[in-house]
Amino acid sequence: MTENKIPYKIYLEESEMPTAWYNVRADMPTKPAPLLNPATGEPCTAEELGHVFCDELVAQELDNDNRYIPIPQEIRDFYKMYRPSPLVRAYCLEEKLGTPAKIYYKFEGNNTSGSHKLNSAIAQAYYAKNQGLRGVTTETGAGQWGTALAMACGYLGLDCKVYMVKCSYEQKPFRREVMRTYGATVTPSPSMTTEVGRRILALDPQTTGSLGCAISEAVEDATTHEGYRYVLGSVLNQVLLHQSVIGVECKTAMDKYGVVPDIIIGCAGGGSNLGGLISPFMGEMLRGERSYQFIAVEPASCPSLTRGVFAYDYCDTGKVCPLAKMYTLGSGFIPSANHAGGLRYHGMSPVLSELYHEGLMEARSVEQTKVFEAAEYFARVEGILPAPESSHAIRVAIDEAIKCRETGEEKTILFGLTGTGYFDLYAYQKFNDGVMDDYVPTDEELQSSFATLPRV
Amino acid sequence: MTENKIPYKIYLEESEMPTAWYNVRADMPTKPAPLLNPATGEPCTAEELGHVFCDELVAQELDNDNRYIPIPQEIRDFYKMYRPSPLVRAYCLEEKLGTPAKIYYKFEGNNTSGSHKLNSAIAQAYYAKNQGLRGVTTETGAGQWGTALAMACGYLGLDCKVYMVKCSYEQKPFRREVMRTYGATVTPSPSMTTEVGRRILALDPQTTGSLGCAISEAVEDATTHEGYRYVLGSVLNQVLLHQSVIGVECKTAMDKYGVVPDIIIGCAGGGSNLGGLISPFMGEMLRGERSYQFIAVEPASCPSLTRGVFAYDYCDTGKVCPLAKMYTLGSGFIPSANHAGGLRYHGMSPVLSELYHEGLMEARSVEQTKVFEAAEYFARVEGILPAPESSHAIRVAIDEAIKCRETGEEKTILFGLTGTGYFDLYAYQKFNDGVMDDYVPTDEELQSSFATLPRV
Repeated sequence: MTENKIPYKIYLEESEMPTAWYNVRADMPTKPAPLLNPATGEPCTAEELGHVFCDELVAQELDNDNRYIPIPQEIRDFYKMYRPSPLVRAYCLEEKLGTPAKIYYKFEGNNTSGSHKLNSAIAQAYYAKNQGLRGVTTETGAGQWGTALAMACGYLGLDCKVYMVKCSYEQKPFRREVMRTYGATVTPSPSMTTEVGRRILALDPQTTGSLGCAISEAVEDATTHEGYRYVLGSVLNQVLLHQSVIGVECKTAMDKYGVVPDIIIGCAGGGSNLGGLISPFMGEMLRGERSYQFIAVEPASCPSLTRGVFAYDYCDTGKVCPLAKMYTLGSGFIPSANHAGGLRYHGMSPVLSELYHEGLMEARSVEQTKVFEAAEYFARVEGILPAPESSHAIRVAIDEAIKCRETGEEKTILFGLTGTGYFDLYAYQKFNDGVMDDYVPTDEELQSSFATLPRV
Repeated sequence: MTENKIPYKIYLEESEMPTAWYNVRADMPTKPAPLLNPATGEPCTAEELGHVFCDELVAQELDNDNRYIPIPQEIRDFYKMYRPSPLVRAYCLEEKLGTPAKIYYKFEGNNTSGSHKLNSAIAQAYYAKNQGLRGVTTETGAGQWGTALAMACGYLGLDCKVYMVKCSYEQKPFRREVMRTYGATVTPSPSMTTEVGRRILALDPQTTGSLGCAISEAVEDATTHEGYRYVLGSVLNQVLLHQSVIGVECKTAMDKYGVVPDIIIGCAGGGSNLGGLISPFMGEMLRGERSYQFIAVEPASCPSLTRGVFAYDYCDTGKVCPLAKMYTLGSGFIPSANHAGGLRYHGMSPVLSELYHEGLMEARSVEQTKVFEAAEYFARVEGILPAPESSHAIRVAIDEAIKCRETGEEKTILFGLTGTGYFDLYAYQKFNDGVMDDYVPTDEELQSSFATLPRV
């Protein structure tokens, strides 16, 4: 089939949808470093992890060997409600940019959670339900993950308790309201419902909360209530595994039309979207079958890959979770208040960190006004109002397409459009009003947050 | 092909997308009554209408004869960015309801405007651009239409001036922000930029505005500025024509799988979505080829079909527009402040009014707490947070499916899911908090608004 025949949007048939997740760890010569028990400094055992996470998810977390993990039929049925997601040929963007590059994006925003997060939320909720649990707990910052989990739990009839960072809870009442509509309990964090919350409030009654604190509350809630487990929306190996559905669908669609990307771009916060998108392509590269250029894009205000260190660190600021070896800014790092949108986690998925460390992937950081310029341009040309997070990938995709215009190269660029910006209009307003500014942490600031790294 | 093989979502191929709009008026034995010039009481001429609307749109407005009107290639290309919209088989809803009915819905919410409004917005903006105009003006209440028009104009590089009802402008800053992101100018109405706005503000400086007032301002702005025309998002014949793309796609998809609906349900405010969805099916019925049950669903708080009169009335409360013969509550009718969401127009599309008058379509009114109950149920089961407007159709679809459960009938139900509720969470919050109440106008109230009808 010639490239002329490629439609604006490629939807796979249901029969072509993935039946298994792809586990990139199976093809990695050097596996990601194991999670460590902070008390002993030894790798966490399945039993230890089982106090916090569902059994099946623990097994997936520790599985570095099986290349494919079948997707249970119930999850496949749920996927059919909002997947396959379209692989879009950005004809309009190409034309307006006047580039010879061919641009594709995998759009994960056409579901009510507004992002790719639902792919893992339904999997985690399903395994919790299957284990006979009553419910799950989690934290949410901006609210995408909390919304996705609320939807999954609402569907399965599972109790869902979300600890939402207090300032977000107050600033984003509509995100909270979507979660409530799906039946979730949303508690502003820190709260009086947990020991750790009460302790933090006693120290600072006026605190507006942090993601680290919300994680600590959610973990405490799960581990002190019979029939509950904690779930997390990014960073972990299991989450990247579930998100491989993005990449597998994408690769199937491209193979169907004989398209091979030269460059694959994704935004990276904790790494779930990027890890999911690139995994089957990375697998080909690891097996020596083909080579690609992979680019992780992160905010200049939270530059874990480009300016962080590769070391064991706490996953949460409350230091109750296992240690992970990753590119990190130190668990004490908090992005500037001027930073809009997500991608504000201090560390990066251990899988992606290892791949980056080995030089298999590049990373770039971009400042947020440049990101919103790209977002607005894209919205007007392609008709989709992108999430600020996704717009990091748009920025670099546009930059690469402009390079092609200058060099005349007809590269094929693929990027992940993780979600929509319908709940991020406060940030767009700042941009429209010309009052958005860029913040880049100084070397001194990073040195002081590196000082929060543990000594293992 | 057997029904077993029907996927969760049916997407047409690009090659199967409509190349022409279907004009149901061509098949109506009694045509909708013409618009009248309020000064002369005579049918408006093309020349008169041309002062307000673009020439090509005037031609479409007056065309009762041509069954098919080709969709220009540029509009077809724009449609490809967000269409075809999926025809969804609601397997999950059927299962949870335990009904033998087969439920389908045509989902128009997967675009940034969040509704079907974009189908007509791009057409109207295209013809304006094609006529060499500089820009268009319009009004918006809740903001869906304004957003759609801003997107279309942003794409074509056309100036877009939106008069947004002041209370909405203040209560829905995010809707306003999406429009600004697409480059539109958004003015709270009444404003000091028009004669009519200044007059209204002089009488009542504290007024929070109304749709009727915003229409008057938008029309004045268009008719007093060189190179501008006014555009409207519903009610008019031309808008129903553009929205026929919904029904034509839907019928093509159903025909492809050999599915024939027994009941077709849509919410009805001004009638653009319902008119668009049912038109090709209604055409078959008018030509005597097949029969269907059509149900228009309106809010009990704004019951133009179920409790209005069929008469010539003003299209706007400012009485600057032509008179239309329609089911109406009187242009002085304003729904209760308790009424959430759209569907608050006092009249109904002349095409639908005529079809209803002839008994070719039924109408039901539903109270809003029942609507939000259906919305929440649907959101949890089908994973899409519906717009309050669309949820009127969901309510009746569920009611009909429950009837089938009781009678054992395996009816096929099709309804229009016009949009998403991401910008309606204030209303959801009221529902979640249990403080939403139902309001039904009394007979006395309706009599007093009927008194605002003109004597023709």
